[in-house]
Parts: sequence; C-alpha cells; structure tokens
Amino acid sequence: MNAITSASDERLVRVPLGERAYDILIGPGLIVRAGKEIAARLMGRRAAIITDENVAPLYLDALFASLHEAGIQPSKLVLPAGEKTKSFEHLMAVCDAVLTARVERNDAVIALGGGVIGDLAGFAAGIVRRGVRFVQVPTSLLSQVDSSVGGKTGINTHHGKNLVGVFHQPDLVLADTDVLNTLSEREFRAGYAEVAKYGLIDKPDFFAWLEANWKEVFSGGAARIEAIAASCQAKSDVVVADERENGPRALLNLGHTFGHALEAATAYDSRRLVHGEGVSIGMVLAHEFSSRLNLASPDDAKRVEAHLKMVGLPTRMGDIPGELPPVEVLMDAIAQDKKVKSGKLTFILTRGIGQSFVADDVPTSEVLSFLREKHPQ
Amino acid sequence: MNAITSASDERLVRVPLGERAYDILIGPGLIVRAGKEIAARLMGRRAAIITDENVAPLYLDALFASLHEAGIQPSKLVLPAGEKTKSFEHLMAVCDAVLTARVERNDAVIALGGGVIGDLAGFAAGIVRRGVRFVQVPTSLLSQVDSSVGGKTGINTHHGKNLVGVFHQPDLVLADTDVLNTLSEREFRAGYAEVAKYGLIDKPDFFAWLEANWKEVFSGGAARIEAIAASCQAKSDVVVADERENGPRALLNLGHTFGHALEAATAYDSRRLVHGEGVSIGMVLAHEFSSRLNLASPDDAKRVEAHLKMVGLPTRMGDIPGELPPVEVLMDAIAQDKKVKSGKLTFILTRGIGQSFVADDVPTSEVLSFLREKHPQ
Repeated sequence: MNAITSASDERLVRVPLGERAYDILIGPGLIVRAGKEIAARLMGRRAAIITDENVAPLYLDALFASLHEAGIQPSKLVLPAGEKTKSFEHLMAVCDAVLTARVERNDAVIALGGGVIGDLAGFAAGIVRRGVRFVQVPTSLLSQVDSSVGGKTGINTHHGKNLVGVFHQPDLVLADTDVLNTLSEREFRAGYAEVAKYGLIDKPDFFAWLEANWKEVFSGGAARIEAIAASCQAKSDVVVADERENGPRALLNLGHTFGHALEAATAYDSRRLVHGEGVSIGMVLAHEFSSRLNLASPDDAKRVEAHLKMVGLPTRMGDIPGELPPVEVLMDAIAQDKKVKSGKLTFILTRGIGQSFVADDVPTSEVLSFLREKHPQ
Repeated sequence: MNAITSASDERLVRVPLGERAYDILIGPGLIVRAGKEIAARLMGRRAAIITDENVAPLYLDALFASLHEAGIQPSKLVLPAGEKTKSFEHLMAVCDAVLTARVERNDAVIALGGGVIGDLAGFAAGIVRRGVRFVQVPTSLLSQVDSSVGGKTGINTHHGKNLVGVFHQPDLVLADTDVLNTLSEREFRAGYAEVAKYGLIDKPDFFAWLEANWKEVFSGGAARIEAIAASCQAKSDVVVADERENGPRALLNLGHTFGHALEAATAYDSRRLVHGEGVSIGMVLAHEFSSRLNLASPDDAKRVEAHLKMVGLPTRMGDIPGELPPVEVLMDAIAQDKKVKSGKLTFILTRGIGQSFVADDVPTSEVLSFLREKHPQ
C-alpha cells in the first residue's frame, strides 16, 4: 500500500527501470486525458491505436479525440476479440498497420484493450523498426494489474501460449478505472485472481486486507484504486528485481503452470475457462501441492480456496464445465510450458500464505500422482 | 589491425558488451571445430541449425557431425536461398522448427549461411521464448565482416527492408575463412565493399592498406584474415559505443541509404544487384553528394570510385543492368527507409576518406536534384 498519491482519486506508480523507467497512472478519466499525458512524455507526434471489436465501440472515439486535441495524429486498427488474435497472422497485420501509419521510433503504438491486445500490440511495438514507443491503455482488471506492467509481450503458437515474443517495456501505462464499470462480473473476478496472487506471493498482509475488503474492491471506489495500485507496485517491485526473468520474476507465475495447462486443455475456449480462472484453480493447486510435499500446512490451501470461492472464482478442476483431457495430456502441456529448464520441471511452490518460492527440480512423478488425485475423472 | 591473436592462423575479436559480451573467432577449420567451441561456451545441449539450399550441401553435414561429437543434439531446417526468405512466412517456419526441436533458453539457434539466414535465424532466436542463445556461422564475406556482428536481426516487408526485427546479440560468431574459397568472385567482391566501408567511415589508414593490399585479400591467406579481423574489430567498436543505434552506430550505414533505395528499385533481384554492390554504388554517391554540398573534395570521391572499380565493383547507377525507376521512386524508397526521424532525412556524409559523420537534416530538395544529375536516364 505504498503507491505514491498524485491527484485526489489518482495513484502514480513509477517503475524505476533506468533508461526504460515509466509511469503507471491509476484512476478515473484517464482515457479522456490520454492525449495530454502522452504528449507530455513522448516526442513523437504519431500514434497507431490497436484495439478489438469489443473495446472499440466503448472507448476508441474518446481516445482518438483526446490524441487529436493534444496534437498527435492517430490511426486505428480494430481486431477480432479473443485469445486467438494472439497469432502470427494478426502480428503481421499489426506490423503492417504501424508501418502504414508511418510510425517512427519516437512515435507510439497504443494498446487499447485487455491482455490479448496489450501482448500483441506490445510485440509489434517491440519489433517494428526494432522498437518504437509503446503506451498501454488496459481496459480489463487483469491487464491493469498484471499484463500491462513489466514488458512481457507475445503471441501463441500451436506449441503453446506466449512462446514467441519480446521484452519491450511500455513508456506509459494509463489504467483508467472508469472502464472497470463496464466489465462483466466474471471478467472482473478473473482479474481479481491476479490481485490476490500478489498477496499470496510475498504480501500476507495484503492478502488479509483483501479477505477483509474484497466487497469494497468489487463495488468500486477508493478500495478498488488502492488494490490496483498495490498490485501494480507489487508487480513493479518484482520486475525491477529481475526484468528478463532469470530468477525471482518467475514468482509471478504462481498458479500459472497449472493454469496454463488447464487453458491449453480447454483449447483456450473462454466459455469454459478464462486466464484468471485458470490462475485461481492453479493457485489452489499450487498450495495443495506444496502441502502434499510437506512444505506448507493444508490449512493455508484451505484458506486460499475459501477466499477465492467466496468472491465466486472456480477453485477445482471439476469446476470447469465439460470434460478435461487425461492427466498425461495435462503433463505434456506442463512440460512444453516455457518454465522448463534443461528438462527439469520448474514450479512456484509455497511455505504458506505470502511465502512462495521458485523450485526448479520438481520430479515429474510427484506432479503426475498429485494430478491423478485431483483430476475429476 | 588491433585484433587479438589466438592460434597461429586464427584471430579472436571480443565484443565487450557487458553481460552480452561475445567472441568472434576468425580463421580456417572453424566449422569442423564448431561443436567444441559452442560446448565450451553455452550451457544448453540442443541446437537448431537454420541454413539454406545453397549452403546445406557444402557445410551442413560437417557442422551437424561436429555438434554431435561435442554432445549437442542438433536439428536442421533448410530454407530457400535469397533475400525473399527474409519474410514473415519464413520467420514463422523458423520459430516452429526451433520450438519443435524443444530449444530452451540456454540452447542455441545456429545460423549457417549468409546475411539472409543470419538476420532471419537471429530474429527467431530473439523472439522464441523471448530469447534463446544464438550462434552465427557466417558463410559469406559480407556476413563475416558485417551482418553476423552487432545483433541486428530482421525481415523485410512490402514497406521496405529490415523494417521488422530485434536487437539480439549472438553468443558466439565462428567466421570460418575456408568457406570463402567456394564463393563466386562476384559474391566475394560484394562483401569487400563492406570491408572498404570501415576504412571510409573512420580508418583512412585501413583504406590505404586496402588500396595497397587488396590483391592479397582477394587471393586468400594472412592478408584476408587480417582484413576480416580488422573489419570485425571496427564493427565491434561502433556497436559497443552505441548498441541500439541511437547515434554513432548509424555511421555503419555509410552508402546504405542510397544502396537500399537501389536494392528496392531493382526489387531485390540478385541478378541485377546484390547488397554489397548497392553499398559500393551508395558509398560513391555519398562521397559525391558530400562533395556537391562542399563538405569534401571531389578528389576523395574519385579515389573511392577508383578503388572500388579496380576490384571490379559497380560504382554508378548506370552500372546496374536493366532500367531504373524514375528519381521520384528512389526518393520514396529513401523516405520510407528506417533512417528517418520526424520527417527529416538522415544521411551519412563525409568530410573526406575516413571522416564520415551523421547528418540528420539533409534537405529533400538537395537529394532530389543530386539524384536527377546522377540518374542514368
């Protein structure tokens, strides 16, 4: 809860990455003010907005007008919504649009959307002219607290999720909290899983605060902005300690190894499972697996599950509608996940709430028998 | 001529880029020894070799066997030869091959080929898993003295050359000088244009040495290795001063703004013009343009042209077989070239042999009237 206060309802989190340092602004009304904030920070006078069909009708006109008023010449590309847009085909389309807009090194690509648009547009910004400026305008809770911060970009291939991409830090993140009012309950909850994750990684007090205040976070206002700012600050701390994920940054993957495998197992079908829901189930599994390895108390796993269940998130594989593939298929997805080094399985395990750590030598056999126990079939 | 001597016939140039520092080995027999050299430097035990149809029959088996003997598990992908291979389509194919080979972060992608293969494979190495290890085994003079050093990777789009890519430094460069014996005279000459370029940028003594010793460089042996090592050292110096091309690295583009425009104007048809030939004509044009702007003596332009002509390189637009498009089309290609900032034209100009500098405010009108004068039609 140590984010710097700027305006009355607004928070500023600075990500101190040397010459790649940048600001995250969190608060209401930021899309309407976007042009001014961007013009104050970037030299270029052109911007290519990348967005999707769901977000465009809601916010594209306001962002466009705001850039125009600030003397920035905007262009736009509206893509299909959904995880399938994170493909080579759409990456090509984005690069083409950015080049057609004659965006040069000091001009900007602006991602207006959730994690899919942010990851895709950020990848394009990282490779067009070997890197142009990049601004994130995240429109989901998930992207505001997680994917818009830290510079990871990428696309999916048939080998798995996010297996192709670059590290390309944004130059500015504008987290307009007004947009959260148009999210569905399910989408907000999915983002909340990542908020809770920061408590589970290394901030037990924040997790306890969420247990006490989650209703206020869901209903909006000061507690919501507080929770988002605390999450961005937590993510910033980890990213600054390890920008290119050689070590501790892997902690951010708490719940993600199981979560990604479940997303792959449901063919990234958002009707069955969205990312945050996979992370929710994954975090419970990570705590249960840690307990099974006698690292943590089973009570911690129960406490994590109780809270996530309370806010309405799925917490067990059996909560996923439809049939899951056999355990062996899940294991294959885990093995091809990028968090594998020299054949050994890397997992984020925990010694209790807020005491997670990177374990890079987890035996496959342990994971297999644990999954067999937990698998609904 | 200050490269470090290692073995009798071998030179070692170290590129001191902090945690991205790497060695360039220059000498005979390096492909046969590649496995040993790679195993001594990299932790991974897998390697994906990317090569082309021209190079594969000559060196692929030897490299494959050498890796095997050193305990590294190799895979291979053979692509069509030629500039058209630097496309999104082939980038996808390379990423897929690297992921299929289960290359992880500490494993390597090995580029066995000229600049096209190096740029493409290096780009894939920079984006698969957001970056895996990368080894260059350049098989042309051009790639040994230029593209294999410095970390620029990329592909072409219909907007122009190298407009999409990343900076991704190799972990090792193995410049096996034996391979130069199988190059055509034309290909060797094209690479020589880049060797001469280092003299023209800021090493007048090296240019004079080349004027005196070019025959020995062309016939092979110690003078050739010396010229390659001096070129790699010169490139390394510039790259270390400005890894991401924010300033002085642009000097390496001497002759390239005109050269790229001519390559675009001939639709990258290697029967008409190859890169080094475009650079040769471009360097003469850059010296003539500098003289026209009263920056350098016309005698310097004549001296540059005389030497490049002596070794058999084209030096005038009229030397390119077939018709060139109108001057306006060349200007468009120059304007879309990536060396454009906020609409102003950036050129490398010179005050004389070895006295080049970056000029970032060259008026379009001056370039246009100069080109009209020089255009063969």
